[in-house]
Amino acid sequence: MPEPSQTTIAAAAARIAPHIRRTPVLRMAGADLGLDMPLILKLELLQASGSFKPRGAFNRMLSVAVPPAGVVTASGGNHGAAVAYAARALGHRAEVFCPLPTPVAKTSRIEAYGAILHRVGAAYDEARIASEARAAATGALLVHAYDQPEILAGQGSVALELAEDAPEVTHVLVATGGGGLIGGIAGWYAGTGVQVISVEPESCPTLHTALREGRPVPAPVGGLAADSLGARQVGALSFAVARDHVAMAVLVPDAAIAEAQRRLFDALRLVAEPGGATALAALICGAFTPPPGARVAVVLCGSNTDPAKLAG
Amino acid sequence: MPEPSQTTIAAAAARIAPHIRRTPVLRMAGADLGLDMPLILKLELLQASGSFKPRGAFNRMLSVAVPPAGVVTASGGNHGAAVAYAARALGHRAEVFCPLPTPVAKTSRIEAYGAILHRVGAAYDEARIASEARAAATGALLVHAYDQPEILAGQGSVALELAEDAPEVTHVLVATGGGGLIGGIAGWYAGTGVQVISVEPESCPTLHTALREGRPVPAPVGGLAADSLGARQVGALSFAVARDHVAMAVLVPDAAIAEAQRRLFDALRLVAEPGGATALAALICGAFTPPPGARVAVVLCGSNTDPAKLAG
Repeated sequence: MPEPSQTTIAAAAARIAPHIRRTPVLRMAGADLGLDMPLILKLELLQASGSFKPRGAFNRMLSVAVPPAGVVTASGGNHGAAVAYAARALGHRAEVFCPLPTPVAKTSRIEAYGAILHRVGAAYDEARIASEARAAATGALLVHAYDQPEILAGQGSVALELAEDAPEVTHVLVATGGGGLIGGIAGWYAGTGVQVISVEPESCPTLHTALREGRPVPAPVGGLAADSLGARQVGALSFAVARDHVAMAVLVPDAAIAEAQRRLFDALRLVAEPGGATALAALICGAFTPPPGARVAVVLCGSNTDPAKLAG
Repeated sequence: MPEPSQTTIAAAAARIAPHIRRTPVLRMAGADLGLDMPLILKLELLQASGSFKPRGAFNRMLSVAVPPAGVVTASGGNHGAAVAYAARALGHRAEVFCPLPTPVAKTSRIEAYGAILHRVGAAYDEARIASEARAAATGALLVHAYDQPEILAGQGSVALELAEDAPEVTHVLVATGGGGLIGGIAGWYAGTGVQVISVEPESCPTLHTALREGRPVPAPVGGLAADSLGARQVGALSFAVARDHVAMAVLVPDAAIAEAQRRLFDALRLVAEPGGATALAALICGAFTPPPGARVAVVLCGSNTDPAKLAG
């Protein structure tokens, strides 16, 4: 039995239900996206704060006592926005450490939700180190971007909803950064026969590299989706689930990610950020080709980008 | 019994089902949109071609024999894009007449779907006259933007889906231009106790004016949403349904429409065009205040606009 299990995830889902949006699925012919298959899109990019991240953030803050010093986190942006959103909803102080290149679409949300924003370092890992020092100094609760059990269980509620709303699904495509989302989703679907496929940019291959090496190891961080998928290495908890319960880990080039963003906007007027379109990119570039008769679900997991980049 | 009735609409829904998207609903706390009530959003702006219009267009083309000359229509843009989309899917020629101010977000779709685009006149009504002359000359089938029974029945399938997916709804807010959408929706909900509320810009008050005068009469055309809601007068078929089965027709200022667009983008990253956000504007500016305990559904009906206008 993996952890998070369906039991753990269902408990998390019930805990966070008053605070998050149950995001809908959209069934569509793939033709409008240039794909020769029916598709089930899980529209998690409509989640509060613009990504799936509030699921884990709320679950962590509702599972563990939050001290008067509040919460501290580090984030490429989406998790920080989610922590800020959840902290405001629950009445906690929040400090968020973001690396310097974090897009304004994300930092502006963090500040709009009332958190204290610190910009530190060139990539997520440096912000993470600063956040841990800050938590040690103030006594605030750390809300990790991916490698805590409550985070995985919260993110797994995406799969619970998908399983209820689209029981016909045979394959689920999920973008992987630090691994919180795929860890939760793989935990839910473990043993069900549904295949969970990890999709990463070639330029941020944390899980792909870890699976090849047999353990989480540092991987390069770069490219179009680095702000949302640019963890330095996949989380230990996620790796333990993914190793046994992820059917395949594929890589996609940045060009396919950009093309997925364009097609989502053109066919659906959906604004997906690069990390939010990465799972779809695997179908577009052929990194994953579903077998005949498959019912493929694609988790569109984030929207925090400047839409002016998509028009045209 | 109004026409379209639930029977007529259900038949249309079955006819068009292979060709359109069943759009999802999203339930959310209104707080993220600055509203003190729970909301049910019908995400019809995710429909193929970017608005609800393919429902009626497909229903018309699948109900009436289409001659070799194909189909002709006039449109502020969304209906034209839908006709072009449906004609391509069904293998028909299509000619679309648009007034000169039609936004490029719409004309580019019409051409991308392979229709012949004609730009005529300053407003929809001039394009309509030109399209009727063209149909008379070529023998093509006219696919009216709103005032044909098949169009109303097709658009009514929005309500059929909403009723199935959100049976708790007590009030439905719908934007009105020529009246095809509200005619179909009011037909579906007639006699059910669900209140259907028409929302129009103050600058395009076709139904509001008609209800005051007791018949369809010309109304001003202008303002932010003129390209999608700028019919010169409400259709006769729609008026007959709306007179008896629309609970209320309210008007909203352009500023409230723009604010609704901004809030949808900020809270949901949804790209709504002005006409697509007009129904929500009624809640934002207080033109409609639901009673305590109401379960309000808002139909977001179109997305064909330049998203760069929404960022900020």
